[in-house]
Amino acid sequence: MTTADGSARRTAAALIIGNEVLTGKVQEANVAVLGQTLFALGVELRRVVICPDEIEGIAADLNGLRASHDLVFTSGGVGPTHDDITIDAVAHAFGRRVVRSAEIERLIRGYHEPKGNEVTEAHLRMANVVEGARLVRTAEVLWPTLALENVYVLPGVPEVFRLKLEVLKDELARGEGFVSHAVYTQCDEGAIAKLLADVAEAHPGVTIGSYLKWRSEDYRTKITFDGPDEAAVMAAADEFVAGIGADELVRRG
Amino acid sequence: MTTADGSARRTAAALIIGNEVLTGKVQEANVAVLGQTLFALGVELRRVVICPDEIEGIAADLNGLRASHDLVFTSGGVGPTHDDITIDAVAHAFGRRVVRSAEIERLIRGYHEPKGNEVTEAHLRMANVVEGARLVRTAEVLWPTLALENVYVLPGVPEVFRLKLEVLKDELARGEGFVSHAVYTQCDEGAIAKLLADVAEAHPGVTIGSYLKWRSEDYRTKITFDGPDEAAVMAAADEFVAGIGADELVRRG
Repeated sequence: MTTADGSARRTAAALIIGNEVLTGKVQEANVAVLGQTLFALGVELRRVVICPDEIEGIAADLNGLRASHDLVFTSGGVGPTHDDITIDAVAHAFGRRVVRSAEIERLIRGYHEPKGNEVTEAHLRMANVVEGARLVRTAEVLWPTLALENVYVLPGVPEVFRLKLEVLKDELARGEGFVSHAVYTQCDEGAIAKLLADVAEAHPGVTIGSYLKWRSEDYRTKITFDGPDEAAVMAAADEFVAGIGADELVRRG
Repeated sequence: MTTADGSARRTAAALIIGNEVLTGKVQEANVAVLGQTLFALGVELRRVVICPDEIEGIAADLNGLRASHDLVFTSGGVGPTHDDITIDAVAHAFGRRVVRSAEIERLIRGYHEPKGNEVTEAHLRMANVVEGARLVRTAEVLWPTLALENVYVLPGVPEVFRLKLEVLKDELARGEGFVSHAVYTQCDEGAIAKLLADVAEAHPGVTIGSYLKWRSEDYRTKITFDGPDEAAVMAAADEFVAGIGADELVRRG
């Protein structure tokens, strides 16, 4: 993908690992956070795959995604129980061994032993890492995130996923952020479709989306304008607003 | 996939179409409903792909998914604006033409004209269908759902997605439902990992999952037992409950 100014945007993919998402036991919640974070960093999330807890399948998906995207994020399957197989699957994908990290083992023992909890083999499974993986950490968040080449291995629990993604921001930032501007209207989508197509054609560097709000209190259709150049984004939004009735504009922001 | 009793389970995949999901503007909400519905029907949702609004990519993904799964559900991109390209993409995938449905055109005109709204070409885009598609409808829900061979084309708006999926239930049901039983505990995941692995091994027809509840009021870990045979599901759950401390069981259900 090439941006309006001709520079190449980095692309990303996500692999969400978990039977619990596919059976609807859990509402997937990490894609939205990842998408927002990457968008703000100027990285284009191009593909998300949700797959079952199966080593061969995860490894095959991961190898497909990491060959075709600049960055890949996995989510899920890194806990201590029998259905947590992501580390094994990532090792399999890279053709590497699983080894125990002495650093993470110290963190686990330091967490449990002062409380008098027995540290089991299952607890220590969380110290398993892929041989040669980088451990990304900060002074604030000591528990490390595994990175291998262009792959980041993140947990499924949304609060922890969010925390770990926050830690990765510095590593991922390159000053290529995108901006987004929204216009909320009372317009009928069908009535403004031609106007939107015209504005989109006149502003090729701006991506325009139209979203119907089903059962809304204060607006009917939300139009979004996204791009790397704030002036171009605002010009496209202004042109759209000039084309609708003044009484149809609810707010901008 | 083969079930515990040796019968083949139907498999399904979903293709979620929408830049708004990939940029995090919208929290994806249809996978959970689809997963729950299919699970109850005994259909195994094996794969979800979220992809951008691009015709060639959607068509390629759809062709891959429909060749490898018994059922495929698409979500999104069926509205009237320039970024709604799912019908074109599905037609491209099947190598068919897009034609206008006189039946749907009548529904659109019947909705707008009595209100005095002008019916635009954009409104009528929603009457576009893939040549040869079946239109699935019921007496209660007149607006039809497009079906082509093993592919069902559903909208992205969650309330409408849910309504249309409900209509498809009769068509999809084959009396192969699955049951699920949950045990909520105060157990530490690491401490029960071995017990869970033992129960899983003793009950090969039951799928067992363990989910950590981050910041919970009343439990710490939820264990789920799923399978086609209710007696086997309950036996596995009973064996697990017998293996934990009585004070660690919060509730079952």
